Formats: sequence, C-alpha cells, structure tokens
Amino acid sequence: MSASNPVPLKVGLVGGSSGFISKAHQHAIFMDGTRRVVAGALSSDPVKAKRSASEWPYPIKGYDSYDAMLQDELAKPKVERLDYVLILTPNHAHFDPAKRFLEAGIPVFCEKPLTLTVEESVELRERVESRAIPFCVAHTYLGHWTTRLARFIVRSGLLGKVRWVDASYIQSWMAIRSRDPKFKDTVWRIDPSKSGLSNCGGDIGTHALMQMRYITGLEVEALSAHLESLVPLGGPEEDQLDDHFTVYCRLNTGARALVRASQIAIGHKNDLRIEVNGERGSLRWAQEESEVLVVNLIDQPERVYVRGGVRANDGFFSDLPEELMSETVIPWGHSEGFHDAFARLHRCFEDDVRAYQAGAYNGSDGSQYATVRDGEIGMRFVEKAVESNRNGNAWTAL
Amino acid sequence: MSASNPVPLKVGLVGGSSGFISKAHQHAIFMDGTRRVVAGALSSDPVKAKRSASEWPYPIKGYDSYDAMLQDELAKPKVERLDYVLILTPNHAHFDPAKRFLEAGIPVFCEKPLTLTVEESVELRERVESRAIPFCVAHTYLGHWTTRLARFIVRSGLLGKVRWVDASYIQSWMAIRSRDPKFKDTVWRIDPSKSGLSNCGGDIGTHALMQMRYITGLEVEALSAHLESLVPLGGPEEDQLDDHFTVYCRLNTGARALVRASQIAIGHKNDLRIEVNGERGSLRWAQEESEVLVVNLIDQPERVYVRGGVRANDGFFSDLPEELMSETVIPWGHSEGFHDAFARLHRCFEDDVRAYQAGAYNGSDGSQYATVRDGEIGMRFVEKAVESNRNGNAWTAL
Amino acid sequence: MSASNPVPLKVGLVGGSSGFISKAHQHAIFMDGTRRVVAGALSSDPVKAKRSASEWPYPIKGYDSYDAMLQDELAKPKVERLDYVLILTPNHAHFDPAKRFLEAGIPVFCEKPLTLTVEESVELRERVESRAIPFCVAHTYLGHWTTRLARFIVRSGLLGKVRWVDASYIQSWMAIRSRDPKFKDTVWRIDPSKSGLSNCGGDIGTHALMQMRYITGLEVEALSAHLESLVPLGGPEEDQLDDHFTVYCRLNTGARALVRASQIAIGHKNDLRIEVNGERGSLRWAQEESEVLVVNLIDQPERVYVRGGVRANDGFFSDLPEELMSETVIPWGHSEGFHDAFARLHRCFEDDVRAYQAGAYNGSDGSQYATVRDGEIGMRFVEKAVESNRNGNAWTAL
Amino acid sequence: MSASNPVPLKVGLVGGSSGFISKAHQHAIFMDGTRRVVAGALSSDPVKAKRSASEWPYPIKGYDSYDAMLQDELAKPKVERLDYVLILTPNHAHFDPAKRFLEAGIPVFCEKPLTLTVEESVELRERVESRAIPFCVAHTYLGHWTTRLARFIVRSGLLGKVRWVDASYIQSWMAIRSRDPKFKDTVWRIDPSKSGLSNCGGDIGTHALMQMRYITGLEVEALSAHLESLVPLGGPEEDQLDDHFTVYCRLNTGARALVRASQIAIGHKNDLRIEVNGERGSLRWAQEESEVLVVNLIDQPERVYVRGGVRANDGFFSDLPEELMSETVIPWGHSEGFHDAFARLHRCFEDDVRAYQAGAYNGSDGSQYATVRDGEIGMRFVEKAVESNRNGNAWTAL
Repeated sequence: MSASNPVPLKVGLVGGSSGFISKAHQHAIFMDGTRRVVAGALSSDPVKAKRSASEWPYPIKGYDSYDAMLQDELAKPKVERLDYVLILTPNHAHFDPAKRFLEAGIPVFCEKPLTLTVEESVELRERVESRAIPFCVAHTYLGHWTTRLARFIVRSGLLGKVRWVDASYIQSWMAIRSRDPKFKDTVWRIDPSKSGLSNCGGDIGTHALMQMRYITGLEVEALSAHLESLVPLGGPEEDQLDDHFTVYCRLNTGARALVRASQIAIGHKNDLRIEVNGERGSLRWAQEESEVLVVNLIDQPERVYVRGGVRANDGFFSDLPEELMSETVIPWGHSEGFHDAFARLHRCFEDDVRAYQAGAYNGSDGSQYATVRDGEIGMRFVEKAVESNRNGNAWTAL
Repeated sequence: MSASNPVPLKVGLVGGSSGFISKAHQHAIFMDGTRRVVAGALSSDPVKAKRSASEWPYPIKGYDSYDAMLQDELAKPKVERLDYVLILTPNHAHFDPAKRFLEAGIPVFCEKPLTLTVEESVELRERVESRAIPFCVAHTYLGHWTTRLARFIVRSGLLGKVRWVDASYIQSWMAIRSRDPKFKDTVWRIDPSKSGLSNCGGDIGTHALMQMRYITGLEVEALSAHLESLVPLGGPEEDQLDDHFTVYCRLNTGARALVRASQIAIGHKNDLRIEVNGERGSLRWAQEESEVLVVNLIDQPERVYVRGGVRANDGFFSDLPEELMSETVIPWGHSEGFHDAFARLHRCFEDDVRAYQAGAYNGSDGSQYATVRDGEIGMRFVEKAVESNRNGNAWTAL
Repeated sequence: MSASNPVPLKVGLVGGSSGFISKAHQHAIFMDGTRRVVAGALSSDPVKAKRSASEWPYPIKGYDSYDAMLQDELAKPKVERLDYVLILTPNHAHFDPAKRFLEAGIPVFCEKPLTLTVEESVELRERVESRAIPFCVAHTYLGHWTTRLARFIVRSGLLGKVRWVDASYIQSWMAIRSRDPKFKDTVWRIDPSKSGLSNCGGDIGTHALMQMRYITGLEVEALSAHLESLVPLGGPEEDQLDDHFTVYCRLNTGARALVRASQIAIGHKNDLRIEVNGERGSLRWAQEESEVLVVNLIDQPERVYVRGGVRANDGFFSDLPEELMSETVIPWGHSEGFHDAFARLHRCFEDDVRAYQAGAYNGSDGSQYATVRDGEIGMRFVEKAVESNRNGNAWTAL
Repeated sequence: MSASNPVPLKVGLVGGSSGFISKAHQHAIFMDGTRRVVAGALSSDPVKAKRSASEWPYPIKGYDSYDAMLQDELAKPKVERLDYVLILTPNHAHFDPAKRFLEAGIPVFCEKPLTLTVEESVELRERVESRAIPFCVAHTYLGHWTTRLARFIVRSGLLGKVRWVDASYIQSWMAIRSRDPKFKDTVWRIDPSKSGLSNCGGDIGTHALMQMRYITGLEVEALSAHLESLVPLGGPEEDQLDDHFTVYCRLNTGARALVRASQIAIGHKNDLRIEVNGERGSLRWAQEESEVLVVNLIDQPERVYVRGGVRANDGFFSDLPEELMSETVIPWGHSEGFHDAFARLHRCFEDDVRAYQAGAYNGSDGSQYATVRDGEIGMRFVEKAVESNRNGNAWTAL
C-alpha cells in the first residue's frame, strides 16, 4: 500500500441490529472507501447484540452494550480508538450514549429526533459547544445536492424576501401498518416512553422543519398547532400519539410557514417537499424527485434545474460557489438517491472529524449537516406544538 | 329546417362587457348549438353597456341596464322571453339582478361568490326553493368529468370512511399584479365594498371548499382560520383584504380538512387541487391536470384514471353509472379544457331549464352543478373564517 | 339587434351524422357565436341523412345528398348561400364534394387525409390556387397555441440549425378495437377502398408529418419506410393495411427526421408529440400536455413555457410578435383543449372567408392552418412511404 | 472480530484513474462492506498509474501495469489473491487484460462494449464458458429493481405476446462537448482505434439493446440501420464515427423493435427508456425515473408500480417470486439511484465469485447481470448495424 493513502476512519455502531436506517448508514459509511464500520453494540439486549455481531456480513467487533464498547475504547491508545460512533437506537436511548461518547472525546453522529426531552438536547448542545467536538444529527435530506442548491438560491436573494413557506412530509405507514409485518420495527414510534411527546411530529415533522430552516435560514417565532390521531389503535384515545400534524408558524421576519406531516395518507410514500415563496420568485423541491429543483421568477418561464446542470454562464447564477458546483458525484441523468445523500453527510462529517483530530476544528456552521443546535430546535418545536395543541391550538412562542 | 329540431335557448347577460370569464361563459353557452346569447345589459355604466353591445362580435340586443332588459322581457309573451340570464357583475352586484329575474320566473346562472353578505344568500336561496326555479352558481370545476368520477368513487365507499381532506387553490396574480396591466379588471377584488369580507377566501377559497363538499358530501362543522395580507398594497394594513387563506376544518363526521388558498405564490397558475384520504385509499385531482384522476388503495399500485378510460369490467368500478360513463364529450387523449367544463354546467342547466319550462322541474340535488344552497354555504364559510381570524384563529362553528 | 353586429357565417356539413370528429367540429364552429351550422347532407345514405337531420339537436336544414345541398345553394342569391362547407366523410368521399363546392365558389374546410389519391389532391390544389378560394385541411393540432409558439421559436433561429426531428403519433385503438363497440365508426379506416393506401400512416402519420413541417418549415426530400400490420385482422395478410408506421426521412437541409405512428400501443391514448433538435437547443411538445412547451438550450436550465406565460422582457423572446402574444383565449392554468384548438382553426378560416367575400383574400401562407398544398404533401408522403415499404424499405424521393 | 464474519472480497482495478464510471464502480464495490478495492493498475501510462495510486483516497496497492499486477497475484498463495478484477480501460484495452486474468482463474467484471471486435468477444466467451468462471459485463441498468420487475412482468405473459419494442438511449454530450472541459475524458470515444466501429451505437445503443433483450428475452434476427454523424467534428466526414443511431429490428418471434441512440439531443441527460407492447398490455420504464414502472392493460387504468410497492395480494402478481419481492434495499419513496443499481450487480457478482471459490459455480443464466454472451451479442449487433448502414440500410441478418 502507498504510504500516503489515508487510513479509513473507524466507526462504531450503537444500536442498528435491525431497521432499514441502519443499513442505509452502513452503505453511506462504506461508500467512499475512506470510512469503515468496525465495531458495534448492536442492541440494548446483550444476547441479541452478540448474536447480531456474530452474524454480521463483514468483520465487526461486537459488544454486549455501548458501555462495554466505550470502556474498551478508553483502554486503547488514542490513535486506535473509534473515530466516531453512530447512534441508531430508539429516541429514548439517544441521550445517554451520546453524552458518554462525547465525554470521552469521541465525535457522535446521531439519529433524530435528537433526544426524548428538550432538556436532554440542551445538555448535549452545551457539551458539544463547550468542547468543540463534531456532532451530526441525521437529517438526511440536507445531503441532497438540490437541497444545497435551494439553500444557495434562497440565501442569494434571488427570490426576494420570503413571504411564505409550505413544508410537508406525508407518508402512509400508519394507515396500512396493521396489514404489513414489515412495520413491526417501528412499533416503538407510537409508544410515548420510547418516542417522546409526539410520533408524527417528532419523526417526520422535524424533517420538514429542518428543510425549511436549512434552506431559508428563517426561525419559527410562534406557532399554532393541530395534532390528530386519525387512525384508531385500540387503546384509550387520549393516550395515542399523533399521526397527523399541522403547524401554522410565524417566522422571525414576519413571514408565515405551514409545517405539516402525516402518516396516514395512502399513496404517499416518503413525500417530503418544500415550497419557498418570495417577493420575486419561488422554488419547489421534493424528496422523491430530488434530482430536480424548480424555480419560478416573475415574468420568466419555469426553470427546472438538475443536479449537475447549473452553469456559471447562465446569467442567473454567476456567483454560484465553486464548492457547490463541484459537489455532484455522478453526471446528470444518473440519479443520486437516498444512499448518496446519506453518504454526503458522512463525507462532510469525516472532514470535520479529521480536522478535529488534527486540532483544526472550530465547530460547525450548519451548512453541511444538521448540528446539535438544529436537533435542539427540532425538539423545542415539537414540544411547543404539543403544548399549543393541548391549549386549543393557541399561539405559543418558541 | 326540420320541425322537430329544438329551438335554442335564449340567454341574456348581466355584466360581461369585459373579463375573460365573460368570454368563457359565452363559448360554453354557444358550444352545443342549443343555446345562444341574444341580449345583454353588459355594464353598470349605461354608455359602456350600449357601446359594448354595438361592438359585440355577434348579434345581440343591448340594454342600458338589467332593469331595462327585465322590463323588455316582461313585455313579451312568455315563449319569447329569455330562457335564462347569466350574471357576471362584481360580487356586490349579484344579489339585486338575481332576485329580480327570479321574481320574474326567469332562471339564473350566477357567478360566485354568490352575494356580498350571507343574508343576501339566504334570501336568494329561500326564493329559489320556494319557487322551484333553476339556479346555478358558477363553480366551474364541478364540470370536469374527473371531478364527477372523483365524487362517484368517494361516495361509492371505495376509499372507506374519509379521514382527511386537503383542498387548496393557489395562484400568483397578487404577487405579480403591479407589473402586468392585464390584471386591471380584477382590481375590484381587493375593494371590500365590491368584493365583500374576503378577497382570496371568497374568490378562490370557496372553489376549494366546493370541490371538497361536492366530491365527499361532507360539511364543515367548525373551523380555525388564518387570513393574511402578505403583499403590501400601500394603504393601511388593517383595511387590506386577505391574499393568503388557511382554514383548518372539523367535518361533520369527525374527519379533518385543510382548505387553503393563496394569490401570492409565483409559479402557480390556477392550481386548484384536492386529495381525499380514507381508511382504505385515497384520490388526488388537480385542475391543471384535469384529464386524470389518481387513486391509491392499500396494497395496490397507483391507478391513474383518464377521462373516458373507465371500463365496466375492470373489477373495480362495476357499478359505475351509465350516466357517468357516457358523459365524456371527446375520446381520451384529446383534452377537455376549461371551456368544456363550463359547457357541461350550461348543458346540465339547459336540461333543468327545459324541464322547468315543461313543468317537470323539482329542484336540483346538486349532483350536476352548484346550487344556491351551495352558494350560501360558501358565503357562510368565508364569513366564519373571517370571524375566526379576527378572534385569534379561534374555533368557530358554522 | 345592433345594426353593426356581424352576421354569423352559415356552415354546411357534408357527412357528419356520426363520429366524434363531427361533434368536435360543431363545437368549434359554434363556440364564438360568429359561425353556425345551418345545413347538412349528413350521410351518403339518403335515409340516414334525412333522419339524422330531423333528430339534430339544433335547427338544421337536412339534405339527401351534398348534390341536393349544392343545387339548393346555387338557386339562392349569393348573400344567402352557405359561407363554407365542412367535409367529414370517409377519405374516399372527400374529393368530389370538395371539387364541386369549390367550383361553386364556396370555401371548403376538409378532413384529412385530403383525398384517396395524390392525383385528386393535385387537382384540388390547382383549383384552389387558380381561384384563390379559402381551403383548410383539418390538421387540428396546428390550432394549439403551443404549436404556434414552437413554430415561432424554431423559425426565429433560437435553436440554431435543425439537426434532427422526432415526430410520432401513438395510439392504441387497433389493439383494443375488437373489445369495444365504440370503435365501430372507424372500421372504414382499415378498408383500402375507403381509407386509401395506408391506414395508420394516412390517418395519424400525416399529423406527425404536419407538425414537423409546420413547426420547422423543413420538407422531406427522401424517405425509407417500414409499414407493419401487427394486429392480425383475420383476412389475408397482404390485404391488410398498416397499423404501425415508421419512416426515416432526409430533409431538404440535410437534417434527419423520424416520423412514426402506431395504433397498437396499449396505454397510449392520443400521443402525438414532437422534438426538434438544433445546434444550440431543442424543444419538445406533446399533444396530451399541450399547455406547455419545453425548451432546452446549451448551458441553461430547462425552461417550461406555458400558454399565456411568455413575457416580452424575459430576455429571450424580445421579438415575439404581438399577434402571437395575444392569441391565448383563457388565462394560463385554465386549460385549453381539443375544442379550443379546433375553434382556433375555424376562427382563422372565418377571417379568410370574410376577406374572400370582401374581395380581399390572396391565398393562405399556411401560417394559420393547413392548406390544400399541405394536404397534397401529406398524400404524397404516404404514397412514397408505401412505395418504399414495398421496395424493401428503399430510399424513395418525394 | 467474530470468527464467523465473512472476509471481504479483494478487488483489483485495471484502468480507472479518472472518469466518473471508475468512482461509481468503487462506490458500488465498497457499499456493502463485503467487498474492497485493494489494488490497481490505474492507467496504461505507468507514471500516471503510480501517481494515481499514491494519491488514492484509501489504501490501495498500485502497479505500473496490469501485467505487473497479474504477476504479483500469481506469486501469491491462492487465498491471498484478488477475488476479481474490474476492467475500466477504453474499449480497445478490454480484451487483453480480460483474457489474461481469466487464464489465471480470476473472475472479471468488464466495462462495455465488451471488446473492439466481435472476434475478441467470441474468444472471451469461449474461454469463460469452457472454464465456468464468473464474468460480468457492466450493463448497469439491469441492476435497477424496476428493470427486474419489468423482466418478470413480460416473461410472466401478463402483456401477451410481444408485438413491438421501442428502446432508446438519448444524450446530449456530443452537441455540447466543445463547450465543456469535463468531457475531455471521453474524447477517445470518437477515435475509431479506441472506440471500435461505432461511437454512439457501441457506447449507448448497446445499453438500449441490452434492456430490450434482458426484459423480453427476444433476440434480433435481422436489422436495417441508419448511422449518422450530425455534429461536424472538423475532420473528413467519412472518418467520423456515428453520434446518432437508429436500428429497425426484426425479432426472433416476428415482433418488431426500434433500437435508437443519440448523443446530440440537447436537454436529454441520460435518457435510456424502453416500452414493450404486447397483445394485452404494455409497460414503460425510464432510467431517469427508475423508481417507477408503468403498466397498461386493456380496459384497465394505468398502473404505476414503485420499487418495493408490489404486493402478493393485488390480484395481479400473485406469483411474483419472493426473491424479487425481497430485492429492494431501501423502503419505497427513498430513491435508489445509479450507485444502488451498480451495487446490485457487484452484489450478485460477489455471490457468483464466492460460489466459484467454493466450487459451486455452474455459469450464469443471465438473470442477474449481463454475461459475456450478452457482451458478444452486443458487439455483433453493432457490427451488423454498421454493415447495414454501409449497404444503404439494407436488411442484414445477425
């Protein structure tokens, strides 16, 4: 091997013995050849954790618990330790391992929503900020090149001042779950002790919020929320978490936003979309058609941008940063997909981890992936939405 | 001429000297050869009314005022009178001519929203119901064959009990109006004395409501509304009518609906759409793609129905009424458009007018076009939305 | 009636007792209020002709034959005669009535393909040209505003020199005809004595050719053709007309075109489309989505033009003729459809007929509708395609 | 590490120092964690080969030439050798390394078109078949789950006997290449000494052919081809390879197919698509929308299948093999892309390589990826197309 080839980063998993999201992360980690999953405390059940590791499709060191994994790491010389851990457990089991690995100086990549309570999120944020250690919340859809182009367009002022944003994330799984065994892995989502205050809002409403905040840079100042449980699950109605989530928002510039999510809409698959309306134009983006971005300006034909299809000389984007131009991995017309978006997040995180190890990391500005602060704001948004809903949909400040 | 060819109906216009909607109605009236516009009080300004009539592209008898037109009609033998009048004036000038022609026993086809106030709507409804005289409110989009198929599908129970409806009507003209002189004809829409309590809600929100009610048969029981004026027009903010309209609704079965409208969304042209979600499936319809209807059932691929493409033996629609099967005017793949939808309403109204003249009319069940009762409900919906908005978006019963 | 309102044109039908195309023409004729169908020799069967006229939905004078209709016209003073006739008979019965009415000085609007043989087409063209009398061949799709915008764009040079054109018209009716009684009216299409040398090529291949010629202004110089009969109809194979038609063309500038048609492709409804590729850009148009036109230029995002959505100040179309700008009948987002395209042809033809009657008609330049010369070229194209196919797909000059 | 975790396969690269396809393969190889690129003779230029290896983003052993790499492998014990090699060189440099590694018993994954001449393809095929050693030709688009579903549907007989296939692959790079430096890597494609007899046909026409053959199981019996060079490159016209490729085919059942490719169509990105028309229905697939498959049956609404959305109880696909049902990697609505399709090929190839090493490999049936026989047929197709074109587009047997 050439002496100069960089050594791949070593990644440890907390949780992840089952669930499609675990496989998606593994694909994203491995994809570049520069990161490898090498260890895992794959389940909170030690027996399952051990068995999963032994049946793993590639070499992995299995642990009974993340505690055991952490102790093992701490016993090693620094250079041999895991470069980062990825937390894939249900919502209620994010906080403790995140805190523990951060304390040990090991960067953390964590699934969302960040924690079970806002307080836990605040604690994690304070820890991350005080130590300047990389921390990523897995808001996958920020990894699409078109999301990044959308952010550039809105922030460049091309659309004028934003007036209205419509962000929504519509799925069907709650409507059809009783019929399909493949949804058994997600049953914990409707259990408040594991999922938190909200099912639909926390699970996918936070993605819609994150797309809105990432692209526009605007923040929710106050909200009026409607949470519904439209699919009866058999238990007492008042115990049931929401499956349909509609939040009317006042943003910090006076603009308005509608942030919606639903899990009961048959025919919708993973329908996350956003439309940003400004004084001079609008843009539309949809996750299921993430290769294109649609821009409308007053008195202009609709323009359909494709990933990789923006040119400096189109008289429109003359100041598109080179960084953004060079982002695309495969030529236009060859679709990037979910794994590619995920890989872009891990790729950016790798950059920060390597900088951190070299003593050159000063914290994230949130331009490449969702930060712990983004995770905390998501938690707060859901908490306030639940509060507004309980108070007759009253306006509630964030 | 053959003695047995039916004599075309004679139609009189109240208003209509300008505006695209006037031309659209005229095309729809003439299209079948069985109805003709023959008279008109084309403007509230007598000089303009006269001049317009003299410059009309086909033979028409012009009047200074609808009053003059009405007096002239009353002086004729019944068989020579106008068969119906079409009211095309701004909102505030619907009520009086409608009332007067109804009193004279002449059926009325009226633009929407029905009147300036709920009280006027009630008065018209009572008059129509007590006399059993045909009255149509011009909710054009009920005339699309796919709207009718959607109504059949939902009411047949195929989708199961309805859980959630998303109906919206999004346009851009308020965002771009200052730049384009062609919008001068619609300036009255933002003048409360001519438009009523609401601009956006009254003008297009009522269409979204009507699609929802027509297709599902459900009624709004209570609502919480947000009305915004996002495009500053220069005058005092509190005087400005809404240009963005969001209403969260509780329906009479407990289902929820979101009824939205906006006039500030650049890139949207005439984007009326509806999605109905039931326990077993959903359907989606959009005005700008009105040749198709999309149906999703649990465990089934998405089905895309086209106008004229429903067959009795598809194992799905075996009970599709022949009436609905035979509705389509041109074969699939040759688009029906706005004029065709409009013509279908006038065609159905012609049937009722001819039945009325033959003494065989017993009132409309609302299955073919929007009735005076539908018009009244639309007025009430807007009134309550305005009230809710003034009261901090409080839940307000209809 | 005002003295100055123009008198509606009087139109006579030759054929048209059944078939959707007859109704479509009638809608198009009536739509503006400035033209009326008043007479008809509705069938070649005198009994059916008479009965149809007596059952007609609006007042019409019925004749046993077009001969009787013509004699009746000639007996009237000129001003009372029919202003034009519309020929709706099967292909083999276009020539004689067209010739006869032209001889009588009455303009003719004729269905396509123009005649049964090229020779007949030549004779009609010579007659029309020598007398400077309006004659329209019913190539409906030229009536779409987006077809006209496409013509302007290509001829303006925006796309550079044309390299390649792909024009196709794909349907399914031959594949499904045996199952659906509604196709009985088109059985004559597969009968050579009524349809001519070609079924698929003549019926719909000519439309694809016409779109290509109208939009680009290019002419076919030579062709190599494949005609197939893919759906067995039971008779001797060699007697069967084509249901699948593929023609590779060399155009008069050296560009290439592929002109295709099929009637056997299940799922296609009325799928006429064209793509024009030039040195600097391309455009795509599809009949079933005729409200939009897609333009791609090198180094530019895809632009989606909508009917009514072209602005002078988009820095692209600064020289769009006012005539084209003002063409649209209804505002964007309200679809124009098949009837609107048809009406535009009859509207333009009305202009020419009124000019002809005023002595101000100098022949058509083909910019508004297909001329008799276009009809002749279509006939010749089909004839040569059949010849090429018989000769082993040999290159054949036009 | 658990003793039972399988050891990842070791992959060597021949070529691949530049070009997007090299990166795509690497992503696909790494994605599962079960395969790794560990060595490479990355360029035919030894200096570049060495430098590239030293700058590689992950550990790799670099060689000056594939010969050196092969000698090094042969010197190792069998278990330490490369498990397979991937050949990424220009067309003319596929044959020799493929032959050499096959001779050494090392499986080969090779880019397409397979070789420079048909004779070379035949030689490779004979070698592969006689030794029963895994060999894959990189027809990526077979790796899309929807391509596999399409194959199942057509072969299940659901559409009836196939009548007509339209397969095309349309790009724009030749039209815009002079303007964009990123195309410099593909200049060899228009050099006959490196590209072979055909540029457009060989490069992308073979993909269209492969989709057709894989999905339908039909073979081309004879063809009539038109090859054009529509973009002038400055040299003598007769030396220029094709950039536009149209082949009319007679298939072995009597069905017809049109196989097309173009590199000059501005606005097309990577537009590979196929439509299969049978007696009872049709299906449509497009690479750029590879998450859906559209099926039309007579008298049925259009059905849109999504990856992962086929259910056993839809009354339509009751016999869908479990293998196909379980193929999907991520849930519907999360797009699979180009890398996922590529990874599926390498995943299937890994299965065969592991079976081969275990002595359990009996050759490929072509159901999982394109075989050396498929590669040979593609070569022959292009050769005959060139021959037909030279002979005035004469029918030429395969």
